[in-house]
Amino acid sequence: MKLYSYPRSSAAYRVRIALNYKNLSYDIIQINLLKAEHRKQSYIDLNPQASVPTLIDGNLTLGQSAAILEYLEERYPETPLLPKAIADRAWVRYVMQIIVSDMHPLNNLGVTNYLKENLHQDKTAVLKWYFHWLTKGFDALETIIKPKSGRFCLHDNLTFADVCLIPQIYNALRYEFDMTPYPTLLAINEHCLKMACFIKAKPENQPD
Amino acid sequence: MKLYSYPRSSAAYRVRIALNYKNLSYDIIQINLLKAEHRKQSYIDLNPQASVPTLIDGNLTLGQSAAILEYLEERYPETPLLPKAIADRAWVRYVMQIIVSDMHPLNNLGVTNYLKENLHQDKTAVLKWYFHWLTKGFDALETIIKPKSGRFCLHDNLTFADVCLIPQIYNALRYEFDMTPYPTLLAINEHCLKMACFIKAKPENQPD
Repeated sequence: MKLYSYPRSSAAYRVRIALNYKNLSYDIIQINLLKAEHRKQSYIDLNPQASVPTLIDGNLTLGQSAAILEYLEERYPETPLLPKAIADRAWVRYVMQIIVSDMHPLNNLGVTNYLKENLHQDKTAVLKWYFHWLTKGFDALETIIKPKSGRFCLHDNLTFADVCLIPQIYNALRYEFDMTPYPTLLAINEHCLKMACFIKAKPENQPD
Repeated sequence: MKLYSYPRSSAAYRVRIALNYKNLSYDIIQINLLKAEHRKQSYIDLNPQASVPTLIDGNLTLGQSAAILEYLEERYPETPLLPKAIADRAWVRYVMQIIVSDMHPLNNLGVTNYLKENLHQDKTAVLKWYFHWLTKGFDALETIIKPKSGRFCLHDNLTFADVCLIPQIYNALRYEFDMTPYPTLLAINEHCLKMACFIKAKPENQPD
């Protein structure tokens, strides 16, 4: 398997965690977003959105981290990241989609660049924008996860919910967003970051 | 089943299509976003994000349309909206997530309100923002879907991809976005809009 990845992309970080947890071997190909390597035609041929990550597994070329996670779960079910009960699976995807659809898209590089370049917003305004959506998202997540949480979001089961949560918290802390109102989320973060699959996936532990 | 819905919400529109296609009976409870009914505490108790849709099925209360679609597929598999082959399922979710994660979140009401109220952008600038993300998304979708398309996105199988595509096209056309560069997507749209499950789900066919 090949993963086109960028160390600080939350979306690529999610996929790295899942691949590690499932003990799948993969080669990483770095796509440096800051050097616009995602805009090269050879990359766009693989990923018409020009976004990371892209997974190649045999004949399959796949973008969109949430789709990749579901694919890995169906193709390599041995170390599951979804629980068995339908209602639990639904809840895990609910948490995942809050992060994937309502938090991350509002603060990825393309969006913050548009705010700066096209709408002439300064650094402070862009950071305020980012924190606004983080607050809305984490407020909801703390409420939704608290009653179900154990060591992980869903009791003591590592799931897609954690796989998506930890990269979002990483990104928030990188911008010095105040996470203290979210003790449940912070405890899960602390626990996950002790695990090998998360450690190996961390942005700072990626090859250059 | 109860669906908390708003006629013009693309996310609620997706779920209505799926419920109709699967011949499931449901009561619609209208949440008027323009009257801020989603901000009432009684609604936030159901959906801490204060977003539509919310599905209630027995003991389960679920937000996030993509999670709801996956739930309906697992709980009511009789009339499937996902193909059987793992690679096809992955491709369908790839298309779905382009719409759900990278197009819709950038133009929902909360975001456009922020642009107007907090960043003091006028109508023209907000429309330009909306069209920018639509162009990026539809460009990628036309490229990805064209080689696979038949009557629907994936050959002649109705899937989540169509369920998500048609509401996004509806929204684009409502703002008079030029869809002529996307003949594949337009042909799928035309075909889908002849089907009862789409017709019944349309914003203009919702009860007041």
